[in-house]
Amino acid sequence: MNQEYIIPDPWSIIEEGFDAELVKSSESLFSIGNGAMGQRANFEEDYSGPTFQGSYIGGVYYPDKTRVGWWKNGYPEYFAKVLNAPNWIGIRVSVNGENLDMNQCEVAQFRRELNMKEGYYRRSFVATLQNGTQIEVESTRILHLDHDELGIINYAIKALNRDAEIVFSPYLDAGITNEDSNWDDQFWEILNVSNENDQAFIRSRTMKTHFDVCTYMQSKLYVNGTSSDVSPEMETKEKSIWAHYNVSVREGQTATLQKYAGYVVSLNHEPDALLGAAKNILQKGTSLGYEALQQSQAQAWAKVWEMADIAIEGDVEAQQGIRFNIFQLNQTYSGKDARLNIGPKGFTGEKYGGSTYWDTEAYCIPFYMATKDQQVARNLLKYRYDQLGKAIENAGKLGFTKGAALYPMVTMNGEECHNEWEITFEEIHRNGAIAFAIYNYERYTGDTSYVPEMGLEVLIAIARFWHQRATFSTAKDQYVILGVTGPNEYENNVNNNWYTNYIAKWCIKYAIRMIERVEKDSPNDHERIMNKTQLSLEEMKAWNKVAGAMYFPYSDEHSVYLQQDGFLDKELVTVEDLGKENRPINQKWSWDRILRSPYIKQADTLQGFYFFEDHFTVEELERHFDFYEPFTVHESSLSPCVHSIQAAKLGRMEQAYTFYLRTSRLDLDDYNKEVEEGCHITSMAGTWMSIVEGFGGMRVKNGELHFTPQIPEQWTSYSFKINFRGSIIKVSVDKDQTHFTLESGPTVTLVLNSERITIN
Amino acid sequence: MNQEYIIPDPWSIIEEGFDAELVKSSESLFSIGNGAMGQRANFEEDYSGPTFQGSYIGGVYYPDKTRVGWWKNGYPEYFAKVLNAPNWIGIRVSVNGENLDMNQCEVAQFRRELNMKEGYYRRSFVATLQNGTQIEVESTRILHLDHDELGIINYAIKALNRDAEIVFSPYLDAGITNEDSNWDDQFWEILNVSNENDQAFIRSRTMKTHFDVCTYMQSKLYVNGTSSDVSPEMETKEKSIWAHYNVSVREGQTATLQKYAGYVVSLNHEPDALLGAAKNILQKGTSLGYEALQQSQAQAWAKVWEMADIAIEGDVEAQQGIRFNIFQLNQTYSGKDARLNIGPKGFTGEKYGGSTYWDTEAYCIPFYMATKDQQVARNLLKYRYDQLGKAIENAGKLGFTKGAALYPMVTMNGEECHNEWEITFEEIHRNGAIAFAIYNYERYTGDTSYVPEMGLEVLIAIARFWHQRATFSTAKDQYVILGVTGPNEYENNVNNNWYTNYIAKWCIKYAIRMIERVEKDSPNDHERIMNKTQLSLEEMKAWNKVAGAMYFPYSDEHSVYLQQDGFLDKELVTVEDLGKENRPINQKWSWDRILRSPYIKQADTLQGFYFFEDHFTVEELERHFDFYEPFTVHESSLSPCVHSIQAAKLGRMEQAYTFYLRTSRLDLDDYNKEVEEGCHITSMAGTWMSIVEGFGGMRVKNGELHFTPQIPEQWTSYSFKINFRGSIIKVSVDKDQTHFTLESGPTVTLVLNSERITIN
Repeated sequence: MNQEYIIPDPWSIIEEGFDAELVKSSESLFSIGNGAMGQRANFEEDYSGPTFQGSYIGGVYYPDKTRVGWWKNGYPEYFAKVLNAPNWIGIRVSVNGENLDMNQCEVAQFRRELNMKEGYYRRSFVATLQNGTQIEVESTRILHLDHDELGIINYAIKALNRDAEIVFSPYLDAGITNEDSNWDDQFWEILNVSNENDQAFIRSRTMKTHFDVCTYMQSKLYVNGTSSDVSPEMETKEKSIWAHYNVSVREGQTATLQKYAGYVVSLNHEPDALLGAAKNILQKGTSLGYEALQQSQAQAWAKVWEMADIAIEGDVEAQQGIRFNIFQLNQTYSGKDARLNIGPKGFTGEKYGGSTYWDTEAYCIPFYMATKDQQVARNLLKYRYDQLGKAIENAGKLGFTKGAALYPMVTMNGEECHNEWEITFEEIHRNGAIAFAIYNYERYTGDTSYVPEMGLEVLIAIARFWHQRATFSTAKDQYVILGVTGPNEYENNVNNNWYTNYIAKWCIKYAIRMIERVEKDSPNDHERIMNKTQLSLEEMKAWNKVAGAMYFPYSDEHSVYLQQDGFLDKELVTVEDLGKENRPINQKWSWDRILRSPYIKQADTLQGFYFFEDHFTVEELERHFDFYEPFTVHESSLSPCVHSIQAAKLGRMEQAYTFYLRTSRLDLDDYNKEVEEGCHITSMAGTWMSIVEGFGGMRVKNGELHFTPQIPEQWTSYSFKINFRGSIIKVSVDKDQTHFTLESGPTVTLVLNSERITIN
Repeated sequence: MNQEYIIPDPWSIIEEGFDAELVKSSESLFSIGNGAMGQRANFEEDYSGPTFQGSYIGGVYYPDKTRVGWWKNGYPEYFAKVLNAPNWIGIRVSVNGENLDMNQCEVAQFRRELNMKEGYYRRSFVATLQNGTQIEVESTRILHLDHDELGIINYAIKALNRDAEIVFSPYLDAGITNEDSNWDDQFWEILNVSNENDQAFIRSRTMKTHFDVCTYMQSKLYVNGTSSDVSPEMETKEKSIWAHYNVSVREGQTATLQKYAGYVVSLNHEPDALLGAAKNILQKGTSLGYEALQQSQAQAWAKVWEMADIAIEGDVEAQQGIRFNIFQLNQTYSGKDARLNIGPKGFTGEKYGGSTYWDTEAYCIPFYMATKDQQVARNLLKYRYDQLGKAIENAGKLGFTKGAALYPMVTMNGEECHNEWEITFEEIHRNGAIAFAIYNYERYTGDTSYVPEMGLEVLIAIARFWHQRATFSTAKDQYVILGVTGPNEYENNVNNNWYTNYIAKWCIKYAIRMIERVEKDSPNDHERIMNKTQLSLEEMKAWNKVAGAMYFPYSDEHSVYLQQDGFLDKELVTVEDLGKENRPINQKWSWDRILRSPYIKQADTLQGFYFFEDHFTVEELERHFDFYEPFTVHESSLSPCVHSIQAAKLGRMEQAYTFYLRTSRLDLDDYNKEVEEGCHITSMAGTWMSIVEGFGGMRVKNGELHFTPQIPEQWTSYSFKINFRGSIIKVSVDKDQTHFTLESGPTVTLVLNSERITIN
């Protein structure tokens, strides 16, 4: 934890002072994105120090051949890789003949700011070059939310101590590589490097997946705010293209280069039309101009914050943390495009390769449901519906039949694409989260149309999977589920993981309930789906038999469900008694030692208590929390949020607050010493849940909102807004009371601590 | 199974007729070796059809970087690779200007013979070239048992239908690669290519491991049996060196090239002395000459057979099978060099990379004990003693302390070097086999000196491992062993694998017994070892506590020990009821499906009953055999032999014979359709056990030999010889009686079917 690093501020992420050791971490934290593309906060000018270059385009990936020791049947063939895309931000700068490189000159007054309110990233510093010239640099970068193919950079240099001959050389560079590559394959083919006057273009194509991308740029030069009509000298190389702008400034004067650049992609345009599309966006961008674009960007972000902000008074670090989380979630996924999803690192790094994990359904959907139009969450559900065919194929490869679906653990296009058998084959609980998300969506939005239109087919295919995946144990006279990995990835190939068995049973029961409802309410859809799936009553009966006789390991001694059959055989030493020198165990211990230890990476049994809270009494929750949390090492970013919510539910506000801080400032304070690899995007939605569901106690029951607000001792007040079925409700909580405001939409009746309130 | 392929013959492996589809399989089956080096039966002349080139040097390996999906602590860094070494067999042949290539000409009368009695490989054929010239080719190849750095090829060409201008171009080629390479690294560096007159040399060095090898050759030319004094034209290339011999023969005449070639290696010589060593061996080889060498080779093999032969009458296929197994074992490992061991593929292929598995201790040692001087088996034990330090390091990497040792699953030099965590971390029962081999060696040889000299340190380190690896289960009030893979690799990460728990307990008890004995009988050794290991009485007490309270899963319903905790929850459909379309499951099923199935790859619980037969009644054995064998798919080459022995013990000779055929002709009949990758060398020792321990019923009890001979219905008689404590005993069994002959050595008293007999 490094609490000195990021300066507390309610609306901005700020770093002051240049520390080359922190460059890679800051490149992650100051990342910007607009849902369609994004990038790490790499410097525009040359930098010869350690850096992790990354610029990413939503939906553009490479199927990198997997690395396995000994190939076995059913192993996925590739691990999709988020792709480092051509660099469009680069501006090489020469001042009085010397190349500007922060690693080669004296740097003072260095400052970075990620302004979350208005959506820009700004960096400024004073450099004293080796030739003695002193300059002040200020660079501002925007990825526009509305014009999501466009990026703008405003790069200003002031000559501080003498006249300066400045050469700005904005460039595009397609000669890039991935840090994370299994076989050092080339990922991109360069088709064409060209320019028309001062507009430059690189056409490139991903190997194998054949995404065509046109990276483009055009720049404008200003001296002391006045447009200069200097024409650049264009230079075309094999993999890059450069525009050289020469300008002389007097001491005290400022030269500014505005670079308009970005990507147009064959996901959104015909490949032949990419060049034209790039010219159109350049035409639009340059004619609007930097100032107007900055203003409209601020307005677009204001709209986001109007719905999604959480304000905390009395605790600026908590405030900064939650806004950073909300900001990054909105940078990663806008919900406009049902083909996209929420990668665990968003646009801030390459790790975890493929884009979509169960994180989306288990952690992200509640945030997007409550802070966006319901269409956004529906698009996330539709993403899985669109991939149902591939999920059925995936199950088929593992020997399942008759339309059973196993959704992938990691995917870009619906195919499974993770390296490790203990994850792909065994972490099958992910199927449950996908069904639960449908239930959760309907519970929250009240939109009963999704199930008959799309969801039911998914539910049937998932129920079929669980039915086939369960094994009848003659010894137990019940159904067991053998050889799984639960949410706790620090165990694998276990039998009867309680969470998996529980959600399997629930999935079957829910699918049957939905089939019956659709039959009654939407007979046409029912007929269509029954024809398509060829589902028979006999098959449903067989499902029901499995669900009705599912085995759940239970300890009479402890009065708790057991995480899996063998849990009580472990050496049950709590984390507190473990000794700090062993932590984090994933860095200190060998894998086999972790596997046979009792330590839990993230909520496992408790994840089931979170999803199915209503099925259990508070006493049962407390018992399980007290049994499992002491063995939980929270070494997954997805762990603290669930525990925070449950601690709050149990009235343990101090503990809930500790977990909250850990989740909300995980990256800002770099708890896990790995932020340089990128930020933990999906767990950020868990942070939001910690406040809204944890402290605020928000639940939806029988179509009504319920709240049981509490407030951490450290806070004066907090407030959040939610979109509940078209009503925008602001919930403000202080030490004494809770205040509800209906900001727009129809009157809402809600339940505050069991008291029914109508707000209008 | 392809029983048409190899022609039955008691002493030779014979293939007749050329089938390009079978070239790779025959390259495996006709492999030759002499313990120090070996090679696949590749053609000397050029061949443009599919081939798998392989020439190997004992102990020379490359640490190939592992391939893993997601690196975890404790993973081995490399997977040692058996290395394809420079080619010394090559002889390019041109006849009347046309290159001889069996893939480019008409081939008739093709015949291969691996003469096991005399130890040579001979290939002959008639080729009609595209230019119309017809020639008869006969090539004989020897790797000499006594001169184990030397290979000799006698390559004769007879001009059948016209005069012929023949160019023989014997060469050395160091530009070779491995078929099995994780990252396509270069494995060899070429230091020098040189010649002195007609002697040629290539000095090369393995990357990383820095083994220096000098590959050498010299040839002699004969026309119609008369030495020709034609001097070759030498040609030196970057990675190869060639000698070109031009010779004219008349129709009906024969030209013969004798090539003397091979390797000298820095394992046996100072790197600087390699060239001199190569010259010495050439000098010796050429002065002895081909005929004399062939004779001495036949004599050397006669000596081997004198001890190791098993003769079977009435079943030529069974006879051919067992001799092939005995021959290959002797080609692979001679026991002269304690640094070497028995690779699962010997010198016949690359698969399984590293050299030494638990196969050596569990399957091979009995064969070498009974058919060689006891020093050979002692050398195999010493190999592990010499690697004890590395085994302690290996355990240390996994978090074990105080001198606990975990021997590697696969190794070349004592370091663990396998790719997969479920094998390296979990298949820890291998430690038990290494202790058992010490016990077995002493039981058979009566040599009580090994334990105080070396074995006890190994036993202590292994006992320490088991003590630390067991976990006290409060729930069971016993010790459990969690997260293991038993001999049945079709399950992994299971709890309380009966075999593992049983051998763990046995290891501890045996170590304590040996400590006490050494204390009594060899106090000096005891003191030395106690000082070295710092073993205290308290620690031994703690071991004893674990051994005394070890948990063994047991089924009251079936009255059998359970293979592991969860076995009875599986869907217990027998192999017979499985349906042929599902077999072999390792090719037909995904890995997860295999893992949760009840199917057993090789003896697991029954392996324990094999090792510890005396601990159980015949009824117990029968019950366990009848419970587990029906679930056993025998998809490991190591499976049928144990089952054959146990079936024989249970008097089920028909079943025993079926298993015997499966193990003895596994490669000759290519049961698993994979012989082209190489032969299954280590399981061949199991074949020997099937006859000697299975049909012959040989056991050693209290220092005495016991026999309970039976004979398969298909056989008229069989006989084998064993070296028991210096006495060479021939055991002949026919339908009516068993006959013992003392061929040399002291008088022996043995027990035949509970009757005591003295033979002299």
